[in-house]
Amino acid sequence: MPRGLTGVVPPLVTPLTPEGELDVPSLERLVARLLDAGVDGIFALGSSGEVAFFEDRMRAKVLDAVTAVVAGAVPVIAGVIDMQTRRVLEHVRAAEAAGVQAVVATAPFYAITGPDEIRAHFRAIGAATDLPVYAYDLPICVHTKLAAPMLVELGLEGRIVGVKDSSGDDVGFRWLCELNADAGSPLTLLTGHETVVDGAYLAGADGSVPGLANVDPAGYVRLHRAAMAGDWATVRVEQSRLSRLMGIARAPIGKVGPAAGVGSFKTALALLGVLSTNTMSLPMASLEGADVAAVRAVLEEGGLL
Amino acid sequence: MPRGLTGVVPPLVTPLTPEGELDVPSLERLVARLLDAGVDGIFALGSSGEVAFFEDRMRAKVLDAVTAVVAGAVPVIAGVIDMQTRRVLEHVRAAEAAGVQAVVATAPFYAITGPDEIRAHFRAIGAATDLPVYAYDLPICVHTKLAAPMLVELGLEGRIVGVKDSSGDDVGFRWLCELNADAGSPLTLLTGHETVVDGAYLAGADGSVPGLANVDPAGYVRLHRAAMAGDWATVRVEQSRLSRLMGIARAPIGKVGPAAGVGSFKTALALLGVLSTNTMSLPMASLEGADVAAVRAVLEEGGLL
Amino acid sequence: MPRGLTGVVPPLVTPLTPEGELDVPSLERLVARLLDAGVDGIFALGSSGEVAFFEDRMRAKVLDAVTAVVAGAVPVIAGVIDMQTRRVLEHVRAAEAAGVQAVVATAPFYAITGPDEIRAHFRAIGAATDLPVYAYDLPICVHTKLAAPMLVELGLEGRIVGVKDSSGDDVGFRWLCELNADAGSPLTLLTGHETVVDGAYLAGADGSVPGLANVDPAGYVRLHRAAMAGDWATVRVEQSRLSRLMGIARAPIGKVGPAAGVGSFKTALALLGVLSTNTMSLPMASLEGADVAAVRAVLEEGGLL
Amino acid sequence: MPRGLTGVVPPLVTPLTPEGELDVPSLERLVARLLDAGVDGIFALGSSGEVAFFEDRMRAKVLDAVTAVVAGAVPVIAGVIDMQTRRVLEHVRAAEAAGVQAVVATAPFYAITGPDEIRAHFRAIGAATDLPVYAYDLPICVHTKLAAPMLVELGLEGRIVGVKDSSGDDVGFRWLCELNADAGSPLTLLTGHETVVDGAYLAGADGSVPGLANVDPAGYVRLHRAAMAGDWATVRVEQSRLSRLMGIARAPIGKVGPAAGVGSFKTALALLGVLSTNTMSLPMASLEGADVAAVRAVLEEGGLL
Repeated sequence: MPRGLTGVVPPLVTPLTPEGELDVPSLERLVARLLDAGVDGIFALGSSGEVAFFEDRMRAKVLDAVTAVVAGAVPVIAGVIDMQTRRVLEHVRAAEAAGVQAVVATAPFYAITGPDEIRAHFRAIGAATDLPVYAYDLPICVHTKLAAPMLVELGLEGRIVGVKDSSGDDVGFRWLCELNADAGSPLTLLTGHETVVDGAYLAGADGSVPGLANVDPAGYVRLHRAAMAGDWATVRVEQSRLSRLMGIARAPIGKVGPAAGVGSFKTALALLGVLSTNTMSLPMASLEGADVAAVRAVLEEGGLL
Repeated sequence: MPRGLTGVVPPLVTPLTPEGELDVPSLERLVARLLDAGVDGIFALGSSGEVAFFEDRMRAKVLDAVTAVVAGAVPVIAGVIDMQTRRVLEHVRAAEAAGVQAVVATAPFYAITGPDEIRAHFRAIGAATDLPVYAYDLPICVHTKLAAPMLVELGLEGRIVGVKDSSGDDVGFRWLCELNADAGSPLTLLTGHETVVDGAYLAGADGSVPGLANVDPAGYVRLHRAAMAGDWATVRVEQSRLSRLMGIARAPIGKVGPAAGVGSFKTALALLGVLSTNTMSLPMASLEGADVAAVRAVLEEGGLL
Repeated sequence: MPRGLTGVVPPLVTPLTPEGELDVPSLERLVARLLDAGVDGIFALGSSGEVAFFEDRMRAKVLDAVTAVVAGAVPVIAGVIDMQTRRVLEHVRAAEAAGVQAVVATAPFYAITGPDEIRAHFRAIGAATDLPVYAYDLPICVHTKLAAPMLVELGLEGRIVGVKDSSGDDVGFRWLCELNADAGSPLTLLTGHETVVDGAYLAGADGSVPGLANVDPAGYVRLHRAAMAGDWATVRVEQSRLSRLMGIARAPIGKVGPAAGVGSFKTALALLGVLSTNTMSLPMASLEGADVAAVRAVLEEGGLL
Repeated sequence: MPRGLTGVVPPLVTPLTPEGELDVPSLERLVARLLDAGVDGIFALGSSGEVAFFEDRMRAKVLDAVTAVVAGAVPVIAGVIDMQTRRVLEHVRAAEAAGVQAVVATAPFYAITGPDEIRAHFRAIGAATDLPVYAYDLPICVHTKLAAPMLVELGLEGRIVGVKDSSGDDVGFRWLCELNADAGSPLTLLTGHETVVDGAYLAGADGSVPGLANVDPAGYVRLHRAAMAGDWATVRVEQSRLSRLMGIARAPIGKVGPAAGVGSFKTALALLGVLSTNTMSLPMASLEGADVAAVRAVLEEGGLL
């Protein structure tokens, strides 16, 4: 039995006003739509939530608003993402104060660290809080890959309860699934890759954290339920449809990273009437003109508009 | 209908004598065992075949022996892997002379090239031979990733008939599957990743080219047939078993690349009595002592020994 | 005439008590020794200052202490290093409040950004403060390289006054020197690489920011003065001596990044009696045992002990 | 005393006819111009010589022609660049047959190798020939960096006599210079970076192998002589001029690697009347139109045209 959260846990985008402040009415519409779709948790302040772009004051505002809007309907887990241990511990304190149910931390970054420091980092976080801790494997951002044996070891020690895998390394994820199973499943394993959730479930994932679930939460819930029921034919159809919908993230021309990916999620949600604006945080620009039209075309082709 | 080869196409290891010459009796045993297991083709001179380590004389000797031993039972496809176009074209001539049924080429490497050169490279190869050409996506070796739209375009032009994907990028492979389907499936899509063949099949792969199939060909044939029949429960069990068997490649201590991976395949095959030695090409050393024992332990745990 | 700071500007290590708090008496000894040696400025909260490891409260404490201890003897420049623009702007406010003379910012990191966002980031920082802004080119930490033409453009716009180059790319630094000279030298160019300051001066650097200057400030001051006087024979002798002294950073076994580099600087300073401890920030461990002995051996060979 | 070649050793571009065959009259003019300028050796079949693009027959043709044209005026060293040991040894045999004075080999590439294999590779090459062997450190092409301690060790063993450093890592080169000096200078150290030869000489380089010396050999000869005489003021002026001339390699729009760099050298030489064409090997296209005009503009600004 996994100790951590299973199912679909969308990494919430953070709705912004044109001035870059939190847009609470949009947040309310967004969360209500996710809860209606039957999601199993909400991940606030993840990469899709633009956590890297927000000063601490804004992070606190987001956590307060999300916990208020979710109001206990499902667990809220909070990204406590920062460069090194002491900074992360500050965010853990803030997350505890906001009343979330779990926290998510990456490996240290910016300053280069080796295996000893990465292990010490997660141990220090796990030791500093009673909240469950998830390790977030995100080499594209932090430029180190979390080693599967270390993750399972941290799980057995009780320092972490699960892993959000956004490593882009399905071979490595398979290995993690096997090691975890052999160790008695101390870890709950969640995948963050929107277009290959099906393969992750086959490998043994307990759930998914797909950014695209902001746009189509019901699809990911159906996919999850079919996978848990062993109905792989349905999984396949649903995944194929969602993979095509993920084309919105490839629609923007000349943009990379969250300016393209999160930018397209926000633009889709604005086109769907969920968000009031598609505003992105500095130094990113919001999608405009042909990029918005390209997102709209993908939504129309997918029948969402 | 795919124009290319589907099913299980093991990338043949090349048995060597202790002096590093081709060991034909071992090759005969190896191929007979693969054919008995029901494989759909044989890929000679791939990365698992140590192609990079062989001078042209040795490459010719391998192709001659493989085509003679296979004797038309299944198609033989040959790696024509070299740094840049003119060198590859020489290998294409040699492969034609050896009587193979198709060739496999990577992107250019060593000298840095951009998208224009990569496209020109595959176009030149496709134009120079009547043999079907497969593009081999192998960024870990050539340090560029083949772009999905370019691959489909080359397929529509008739320059390539398929892709062997060893990119380690399941998200990219999913996109390739979708673009290919939308274009009328000009490409046959094969995956080279031993431990995630199941996910690749879900995504739309037509077959697999797993190095581990040298060791357990029957398992990959069962996995393929179950996937084609939509029997995902069987796929899952078989894949899980094979993934654990792939632990032989992680058994060697302090080795990387083919010295570990191919080295473990050869060692397993020697322990199984198929190969006479586990000799590796210069500058690699063969597995010895504790590394051999570790491979043996994985085979025993998996019930192969 | 460069608008920015020239000469030797050590990136100050941050002395810590065994509990990880700021050690002010050690800081006073360290700064006094640098000023005695004739340095031209002090760079607080750089990578050598463990900026990535400190929560905001600790950053503020360091800036307050450094400005108090330096007391106007030379300019103090402050690292305002964080993931994205809004977070950096918070640190700029704090640096202004602490009364420093300039700030140093890297490209955005963690969340992937492209050229448009990087330019927008520096423009936003330059527009938000009257303090001179230095761009810190540090791809090993932020995983993007600052483009020379963009830097010169930002200099001509008045958004930045200089560059601290720790790019490890001497070819790129040469190009930056040429473009800057052609544009009328809007930028002051400083190198951060301890062992190749001589080549950077030949190329046109205006000064240096070497972490090793914490340990041997007088050597870097002599090197700078000789370079400015065109006395390359002296430059060469001094650089060779300092390069060998940099062997302290290679002395620790099995450590990477600041745990090795800054760890060796702090250990050397402790052995020299300047710092009370060689304590490093979480999740790093301080050098011990054989590693300390190895640092001592290099210092003794160099005649510093 | 270095055992290897010192001074200026241009890595010869290979003149081609429009059909891609060796253009011997152009080769004669090119070599004559280099010898007139006073170069100390000729490096045939290096990266600038498009070695990666030539099949073995063409490599042999180039070596035969170069040795015939040079006719003993200076030593000829030959690139024996290929993926792995056995293939390199074949090229060593061919180079011996062509009568060259030394060979240059990179680390193994394509198939991933670790430190043990890299060391075994160079040892095998050094043991297989009486010709002096140079190690070519070229991570941008082979994706591994040669470790300084290993290079010095190979030098002390007599397996290699020198290093051509094109690592783009001036800090690493400085360390190599120091280790080599400490070991009694078993290695001759040559730099391949056109724009930072001055810094390499300050660090202890014995000579240079700059591709741009195809275009301006006299400049590099003057730079070398000034460096050997300790006349750093002259070094600086000459290096600055040559660095600007290297702008030809940045002139082509949208090209990367040798298509840009070697393409610009060949175009410059064609504009100077030395080569008959600027033809590049498949799959590269030759520079045309605006790119040729951009190269011409740099030559005119530098007074070469």
